[in-house]
Amino acid sequence: MTSDLQKRDLKHVWHPCSQMKDYEEFPPIVIKSGKGIYLYDENGKEYIDAVSSWWVNLFGHANERISAALAEQAGRLEHVIFANFTHEPAVLLAEKLVEFTPEGLSKAFFADNGSSAVEIALKMSFQYHKQKNKPNKTRFLALNNAYHGETLGALSVGGVGLYNEVFQPLLLNTIRAEGPDCFRCPFQEEPGSCDTPCISFIEEKLTDHHEELAAVIIEPLIQAAAGMKMYPPGYLKKLRQLCSRYDVHLIADEVAVGFGRTGTMFACEQAGISPDFMCLSKGLTGGYLPLSVVMTTDEVYDAFYDDYQTMKAFLHSHSYTGNPLACSVALEVLRIFEDERYIGQIQEKAAYMRKRATELFVHQSHVGEYRQTGMVGAIELVMEKATNKPIPAEKRAGYQIYRIALEKGLLLRPLGNVLYFMPPYVISEREIDRMLKIANEAMQVYFDKSPDNVGVVEA
Amino acid sequence: MTSDLQKRDLKHVWHPCSQMKDYEEFPPIVIKSGKGIYLYDENGKEYIDAVSSWWVNLFGHANERISAALAEQAGRLEHVIFANFTHEPAVLLAEKLVEFTPEGLSKAFFADNGSSAVEIALKMSFQYHKQKNKPNKTRFLALNNAYHGETLGALSVGGVGLYNEVFQPLLLNTIRAEGPDCFRCPFQEEPGSCDTPCISFIEEKLTDHHEELAAVIIEPLIQAAAGMKMYPPGYLKKLRQLCSRYDVHLIADEVAVGFGRTGTMFACEQAGISPDFMCLSKGLTGGYLPLSVVMTTDEVYDAFYDDYQTMKAFLHSHSYTGNPLACSVALEVLRIFEDERYIGQIQEKAAYMRKRATELFVHQSHVGEYRQTGMVGAIELVMEKATNKPIPAEKRAGYQIYRIALEKGLLLRPLGNVLYFMPPYVISEREIDRMLKIANEAMQVYFDKSPDNVGVVEA
Ligand SMILES: Cc1ncc(COP(=O)(O)O)c(C=O)c1O
Ligand SMILES: Cc1ncc(COP(=O)(O)O)c(C=O)c1O
Repeated sequence: MTSDLQKRDLKHVWHPCSQMKDYEEFPPIVIKSGKGIYLYDENGKEYIDAVSSWWVNLFGHANERISAALAEQAGRLEHVIFANFTHEPAVLLAEKLVEFTPEGLSKAFFADNGSSAVEIALKMSFQYHKQKNKPNKTRFLALNNAYHGETLGALSVGGVGLYNEVFQPLLLNTIRAEGPDCFRCPFQEEPGSCDTPCISFIEEKLTDHHEELAAVIIEPLIQAAAGMKMYPPGYLKKLRQLCSRYDVHLIADEVAVGFGRTGTMFACEQAGISPDFMCLSKGLTGGYLPLSVVMTTDEVYDAFYDDYQTMKAFLHSHSYTGNPLACSVALEVLRIFEDERYIGQIQEKAAYMRKRATELFVHQSHVGEYRQTGMVGAIELVMEKATNKPIPAEKRAGYQIYRIALEKGLLLRPLGNVLYFMPPYVISEREIDRMLKIANEAMQVYFDKSPDNVGVVEA
Repeated sequence: MTSDLQKRDLKHVWHPCSQMKDYEEFPPIVIKSGKGIYLYDENGKEYIDAVSSWWVNLFGHANERISAALAEQAGRLEHVIFANFTHEPAVLLAEKLVEFTPEGLSKAFFADNGSSAVEIALKMSFQYHKQKNKPNKTRFLALNNAYHGETLGALSVGGVGLYNEVFQPLLLNTIRAEGPDCFRCPFQEEPGSCDTPCISFIEEKLTDHHEELAAVIIEPLIQAAAGMKMYPPGYLKKLRQLCSRYDVHLIADEVAVGFGRTGTMFACEQAGISPDFMCLSKGLTGGYLPLSVVMTTDEVYDAFYDDYQTMKAFLHSHSYTGNPLACSVALEVLRIFEDERYIGQIQEKAAYMRKRATELFVHQSHVGEYRQTGMVGAIELVMEKATNKPIPAEKRAGYQIYRIALEKGLLLRPLGNVLYFMPPYVISEREIDRMLKIANEAMQVYFDKSPDNVGVVEA
């Protein structure tokens, strides 16, 4: 039975990242409210938001502290043009971001979403080299399987064919390198103990192309959209050295992994490195509002700083750049991190999740691997453990399990055949248990009903 | 004297669309609060926001009705993933947008800012033709002087050299046509009475290139960033016919002109046309929050609607797509339009502004033209009226006048040598008088002090 709101939604709303025809038999769930890790639909049914609503929520839905900060700011100043004007929330937020991000990142340039932040980093890097008399440095290097957003510049450095293949004629000619693949390591190494020999793939591209390269862009520690592919910090350390050696910028896209997700405030910390640009969004506002920021260095800033007539300024803007509402919310998020010493809590909860998930999943025949970095856990589903043969994409095993889990009150939304857990940090141990248990049950239902992984299970 | 917050801003904040060196002698103004058409800085000084903070504000700063809607929503549901999920504010907003926009626009696809909306329209148009077996339709046609945003796709269809020249190697090879230029009409016609012979420029490009063209993108009635260049609806009418004839989509970028700015809810109404895509942002949230939407037709939607396995879905998303906070705010904005019959009010206020501005400005020797469309008025500054010779850009006359006006409590922020007035709709007749009076005084100070337009005036 589709509800009135569902019908009205289907009439006029085109949803993101969706084949709308799928909604015929699986209409959109109408969410009425949220609280903590829970979402409630129009019938009062409860769902655990195990994906933090596309990796944005940190401290729970309808968080009272954040909502209060938002309302307070709205009563005072909802927005003001950010060229030649400023306001306290933006200044305090920039200060805190400089303090929290790795050494050397001293300037904050604001925008509205992750894609725009990536575009800004690419454009700044390009213009920097031009103004430093290296006009040949016009190209970018990215990893296969990278995901950096959907606007054409961001999509150009992405490597997930699902998103960018059809748009090929509109995209930049990006140089691509094989990235780390710890699950199916071509060197048969163990992640954690290896010396990241896979750095050789990108090293080779840097050696060959550095003269035409402006920047390398990378998702530190976790290639999230590619299916929560994880790799060790040692890779980043080496990459930082290579970039410095070849005068190529390193853009760390921490849109998905920033703000504690990997167990440290920023993923780059684990490698002890500082990039030339760091892109932040998603968790920046605790899952409330679109806001993004590109952090960069004095070295970059100074290359644009000159008399007006030299026309060296970086003339990028968005109407809502530096939006006071979003800045106030982000400032409150950073204060929660400080006041409640959240990084320590995340590490404890992550350890608990790792222990319980390992117990539950690793022995199962369809689980190729359970991997985890900080508060991101992922199950790689396979045909059978012995061979790790992938389940063919057209079977949509992940999608089927997602639908079964939703019935049971868990929002999982897998990436292909990778199920993952990226819950809000306010999750309790008991709630972690429940989340894992329901996921496990949903997997059992699916694999029991279609042992050969071909059946379509009705949720 | 720079204040503590100004110093701290300059240390860490990189402002949009700014040569930061200019801030050395003109540090950013720290805004503490806003109310109605006014902004208040940290010293309590009042500024009339004559540009609606980059054209976003409609119903005044810190509007109580909108702030209440925002707070209410924040207490219930701040955000939820928008793939397979929905919520009432998004559904109601989509319905109202379908109702308010021209006939035929029946589907709403959400995003976060104007640039992203433009990118979505370009990508959708491209993929549409591909899926309709016209894979050669891969290019876009845009006007010289167009502005559509700053991400690389949006920047590619822009024609303002200031923003995109340096990034040329990163941009799409867009086909460009001479647009209407009513101030310096090459046909010596009068706007309003002409038969838009300038359509021939774009018609020629369409005739020559239609086989490789996916879409034409245009700013209806006002090329805003180009300097509030205005042209009559007849041009749009003809363009719509040409696009239909040649099977080329028409993308109406109403990011700046939508929501009443031109005196009708949408600029396209004045031409009685319906585009294939309409991009909306800025005023959509009354100046509160980043949100954008692309409205399109069933015809477009249906070309993506098929079984999952055909891989025809439009796989574009942003993390905060369909953000409930922004949707609630936008919904409240549309309710204010309805409840307070705002379009009528805008037309009355616009008539008043036109009368007073005409009296004040048209006779002045440095005013080449005062033009107005709805609630957008613009003064084209020239060396002398007789010849309409432009003031050389490097004199920064507009910038000097801007600084003088700020001293006097008016935020103008001209575009080159075009001063413009685009105030919030809540402005009263008395406030219109004051706004125009201060602008006039600032012009006098500048031209009196530097009659040859070369002097740099200290504000
Ligand atoms: C690593 C990364 N970069 C960029 C983006 C794009 O951000 P947005 O969706 O806000 O445009 C994402 C979004 O998922 C992401 O995961
Ligand atoms: C006509 C038009 N399109 C697109 C944009 C880009 O919107 P945003 O600044 O939100 O990215 C603007 C912004 O000024 C605009 O005026």
